[in-house]
Amino acid sequence: MIGATGYAGAELMRILSGHKNASVQHAVSKSFSGQNLSDIYPSFTGRDIPLEQMDIDAVTKDCGIVFTCLPHGTSAEVVPQLLSRGAKVIDLSGDFRYTDAAVYEKWYQRTHNAKHLLSKSVYGMPELYRDRIKDADLIGNPGCYTTSAILAMAPLLKAGLIHPGSIIVDAKSGATGAGRASNTALSFCEMNENVKAYGVGTHRHTSEIEQELSIAAGAPVTLSFTPHLLPVKRGIISTMYATPSNGVTTAQLKDAYAMYENEPFVKVYEDSLPELKHVVGSNNCAIGFVLDARTNRLIVVSCIDNLIKGAAGQAVQNMNIMCGFNESDGLSIYNGKND
Amino acid sequence: MIGATGYAGAELMRILSGHKNASVQHAVSKSFSGQNLSDIYPSFTGRDIPLEQMDIDAVTKDCGIVFTCLPHGTSAEVVPQLLSRGAKVIDLSGDFRYTDAAVYEKWYQRTHNAKHLLSKSVYGMPELYRDRIKDADLIGNPGCYTTSAILAMAPLLKAGLIHPGSIIVDAKSGATGAGRASNTALSFCEMNENVKAYGVGTHRHTSEIEQELSIAAGAPVTLSFTPHLLPVKRGIISTMYATPSNGVTTAQLKDAYAMYENEPFVKVYEDSLPELKHVVGSNNCAIGFVLDARTNRLIVVSCIDNLIKGAAGQAVQNMNIMCGFNESDGLSIYNGKND
Amino acid sequence: MIGATGYAGAELMRILSGHKNASVQHAVSKSFSGQNLSDIYPSFTGRDIPLEQMDIDAVTKDCGIVFTCLPHGTSAEVVPQLLSRGAKVIDLSGDFRYTDAAVYEKWYQRTHNAKHLLSKSVYGMPELYRDRIKDADLIGNPGCYTTSAILAMAPLLKAGLIHPGSIIVDAKSGATGAGRASNTALSFCEMNENVKAYGVGTHRHTSEIEQELSIAAGAPVTLSFTPHLLPVKRGIISTMYATPSNGVTTAQLKDAYAMYENEPFVKVYEDSLPELKHVVGSNNCAIGFVLDARTNRLIVVSCIDNLIKGAAGQAVQNMNIMCGFNESDGLSIYNGKND
Amino acid sequence: MIGATGYAGAELMRILSGHKNASVQHAVSKSFSGQNLSDIYPSFTGRDIPLEQMDIDAVTKDCGIVFTCLPHGTSAEVVPQLLSRGAKVIDLSGDFRYTDAAVYEKWYQRTHNAKHLLSKSVYGMPELYRDRIKDADLIGNPGCYTTSAILAMAPLLKAGLIHPGSIIVDAKSGATGAGRASNTALSFCEMNENVKAYGVGTHRHTSEIEQELSIAAGAPVTLSFTPHLLPVKRGIISTMYATPSNGVTTAQLKDAYAMYENEPFVKVYEDSLPELKHVVGSNNCAIGFVLDARTNRLIVVSCIDNLIKGAAGQAVQNMNIMCGFNESDGLSIYNGKND
Repeated sequence: MIGATGYAGAELMRILSGHKNASVQHAVSKSFSGQNLSDIYPSFTGRDIPLEQMDIDAVTKDCGIVFTCLPHGTSAEVVPQLLSRGAKVIDLSGDFRYTDAAVYEKWYQRTHNAKHLLSKSVYGMPELYRDRIKDADLIGNPGCYTTSAILAMAPLLKAGLIHPGSIIVDAKSGATGAGRASNTALSFCEMNENVKAYGVGTHRHTSEIEQELSIAAGAPVTLSFTPHLLPVKRGIISTMYATPSNGVTTAQLKDAYAMYENEPFVKVYEDSLPELKHVVGSNNCAIGFVLDARTNRLIVVSCIDNLIKGAAGQAVQNMNIMCGFNESDGLSIYNGKND
Repeated sequence: MIGATGYAGAELMRILSGHKNASVQHAVSKSFSGQNLSDIYPSFTGRDIPLEQMDIDAVTKDCGIVFTCLPHGTSAEVVPQLLSRGAKVIDLSGDFRYTDAAVYEKWYQRTHNAKHLLSKSVYGMPELYRDRIKDADLIGNPGCYTTSAILAMAPLLKAGLIHPGSIIVDAKSGATGAGRASNTALSFCEMNENVKAYGVGTHRHTSEIEQELSIAAGAPVTLSFTPHLLPVKRGIISTMYATPSNGVTTAQLKDAYAMYENEPFVKVYEDSLPELKHVVGSNNCAIGFVLDARTNRLIVVSCIDNLIKGAAGQAVQNMNIMCGFNESDGLSIYNGKND
Repeated sequence: MIGATGYAGAELMRILSGHKNASVQHAVSKSFSGQNLSDIYPSFTGRDIPLEQMDIDAVTKDCGIVFTCLPHGTSAEVVPQLLSRGAKVIDLSGDFRYTDAAVYEKWYQRTHNAKHLLSKSVYGMPELYRDRIKDADLIGNPGCYTTSAILAMAPLLKAGLIHPGSIIVDAKSGATGAGRASNTALSFCEMNENVKAYGVGTHRHTSEIEQELSIAAGAPVTLSFTPHLLPVKRGIISTMYATPSNGVTTAQLKDAYAMYENEPFVKVYEDSLPELKHVVGSNNCAIGFVLDARTNRLIVVSCIDNLIKGAAGQAVQNMNIMCGFNESDGLSIYNGKND
Repeated sequence: MIGATGYAGAELMRILSGHKNASVQHAVSKSFSGQNLSDIYPSFTGRDIPLEQMDIDAVTKDCGIVFTCLPHGTSAEVVPQLLSRGAKVIDLSGDFRYTDAAVYEKWYQRTHNAKHLLSKSVYGMPELYRDRIKDADLIGNPGCYTTSAILAMAPLLKAGLIHPGSIIVDAKSGATGAGRASNTALSFCEMNENVKAYGVGTHRHTSEIEQELSIAAGAPVTLSFTPHLLPVKRGIISTMYATPSNGVTTAQLKDAYAMYENEPFVKVYEDSLPELKHVVGSNNCAIGFVLDARTNRLIVVSCIDNLIKGAAGQAVQNMNIMCGFNESDGLSIYNGKND
């Protein structure tokens, strides 16, 4: 693993430490090499996990699969070196999530330095791309907001049940989504008892959601996405609005969501709405909806743990598929929290 | 004051205790009569405020203005008695906010027992009805969610800048909005690190917002309103979506909001968005917006303190207008919080 | 399991659902029988766990070990029936933690209705009583505050390193310690941004700590215990003060704590102090200390997750010992939280 | 005011903006000069408060009293310049709180660069030094932890009711006490759902408490002080332990505290203990106690708002005394919070 000391990296270390078929050979950290993971995260006390400087040859020699938890742009530089030495890579940055480099370059406002890999990369959402993930060498692991929105809306667009141009995603995220950083704006005093919207109309995840929902709809989808920062540590709750197609019924909506019937990590609620705490601590995405005849609008609520299904958990799910393990290995299904 | 021990009532007691021209003659509490207010709220320690049983004659004899902080339905029974004895009343329930009893009866699912007073009651939002408030005997003090939404959207509808049928209000509230109650769902363990949507498509405030925005638009407005419960104590942040009319510009939007230029308690941000903490602890409503050309949507964010501008503060503002006091008396303008 | 829907009961259900050698045969709930556990705790969604009325015969027929998560007093009535039908019992109430019924009756201010079982019951703290737990039919599972205090102080008293009369335990607990209840004082609005001391000089856990520390010291120990309620959901942090015996050194203190060297769930920090988040989500107790020569005082800090090591986790640890399983089964060691 | 953009400085700006007899002539900020205070703290939106670079001559020319909210050491350099130009100074750092420079130099581990002023400086705790504050040119405004501890213990030591060597102060503070900073350890993700002890045996406030309690006792007092960081924004709750002198009664303790009878900002509870929220938002210190005969210990709980009575509010109280204003001006007595 490269980038073990951010929140997503540490969560990946936590999950892999309980995985019966996988073990971590190298934990690479630029900022903390030479220290032990337990120096940064004392919950690992009692376990000896030295943090190493990056050594591409050592990493690729010892690991079948490399997880890269690096900043955007850095991944595009490191990943080609890993692939060329024969490793398979699951990348948690935004660098390999796009089919069209121009979209990436517009929303991330930077040049993409490994464009040639985009055609080989598979978007790592098992519910949509399980077959392609099996044989992939490079996974672009989905973003957190995007996972909550795409899983909720793709089935409806596939089934033609909503107007593609009508979608609004009002999303609210916990603070781990902003990363582990020295930033006054992320301090307890600034955040507790506060909520704010940010990146309105400009957040990068907008383009990632639009890419996948356009594929689901079979036509270009443009949508509004408004992220908010919540005084909670983990979890994303996305409330989505769309205009249903003429005469759409609740039964049709349920039918569309039936595509998740055998999915281990998607729960569609029958007649209630999910809450953050139903999923925090688990790899689950929980979805519920209300069809409001009075206003002719469909309201869908989708919740995930941003560090698990929105990052490290989904990455392990992808690894399990790539390695032929049981898809749930290391991702105990019933580990949400009760309080 | 009748109903002094709910959160809105206690906030009213706090505000009035610092008001130079007003003093509280009677603090009535059904649940706690015989005790002192400081027994329930120790922040009043050192101040002797006995809680009394309701005695309509005593209350109306000693008070020029009576604040009623009672449950819906109870107000409709008590208020006529107060008015008939010559008191002026500022009612904080939903009972006297509606022009059409049928709308109330549909959304509150109960019979209205004082329908005849609805034509005399004035909707207590000074920014829209200041002149009528001056001479009113009965004020229906606005709801909390509704205050944040109406102040933000009414100017745009008045100016014809948005499509009346396109409005979506995604609102998030602190827990004081749910009242002071013994309720497992409102316990710290259930609420901290959690967020949920509730009352989707059915929340009563929908009808109150629609009433006032229909008046502003000069045509019936139907809208989607989705409230969420946040792990914060105070504050409402409403994120609103609407489709702008053809060719609407940012300058036109600013012009529409210029109607608040001299308002003491509405702040329209030039080029940023308000956050909860900018207003919590104050009687301010802060409004900001983004006109997103890419999606042809207008996103408006509006924040208030639900117990102050959304309840007790607005009630005192109404009292000040009715009594000819300075409108800001007791409502120090610069008392938001910095941390 | 009897009493599956309190916080400790639900945590036990969560832990047992991931245990490879144990499975739950009956989930009994007086308040919610007829419903499914996922109705109360939606994190169990997708798993069918019917909540049953109590049927002593069915329970004892199907279960080798019965966990009782019942109110004090109720356990004393139910447990004898379970034992007489041949079940082994791990009781999470205070009823079977005492060697002397008179102490229980004084501090719990009630008559003990199963005094005859106290001599058979074993205090379920594996670090102190592992050998006796192996063969026990009845375990009095320790209290939460008491676990944090006893694990920290017992080694020092055994080694004679502190004055038995000098101990002060200033403990701070998350709200799950107060249980799942409809109680205004436990509401989010009352608790967030608040901290209070309670039960000063009278909290029942005082007597339980004194009992075990007296045994460790080989002489009666009387101590001050002050619990505080924190605005966190889980976790206890106890800060303890004691006067060291003449000439005690840091090395001697480390030697005393070396008794935990091979304990899977006790972490003694070398030269830092544990924080709540180091242990929340795990079955660990983390202990650190400062020997302050200037004041001739020893300060010890001890942290646990009150629902795991302080209740359900320790109960499963006891079950593992009683059944000959690996002591860590179901209690993954490295599952503390990093954020 | 010099140093207007830290939390204490901003709170001082907030309090002074509502003060009828005082107005701020200069708001100096090294970090943010050229901006407006509302850029840093949007709750000041609508009010024009330019942040200036330090200009000693301008400041002293226009201000009768200068508040200095500067880091330790910086105050010792700036304050002499202010005094020499004729200004009176209320300093919120630790630099002018000590009577003995050697104590300061030991605990702050730095040289004191204005030792000659220590004999002129008055410790700014009105309840103990009101008469001297009246005529002072330089006030060393007390620390936050120290205020909570000294107000609670000084009366008992003065009356000889407790053993001076027996005092333990277990204090818990909100995060504003750590200041407004870019610091990962103060981030929401690190702090929420966490509590930790820090600076055990070495925190600087230890020496300040000992200085004042030694004066109260008329003999040297050495004590243990353990601060903890809470997941709350504001407030300090100190739980203190002491051994009562032989035969001390509750009545004697009440008599000792009667010295606060006419104090506007100290509330001694009759038979209950104060909680954080009773005082947060106010300039009050609330004190309660339990005399535990069983253990022969006295437990005292004392609560303040660390930014008000523990910093900015006490500074304004001192200004009021120095200027001959009503001592409560700008410090509304009943402004604690109810939720």
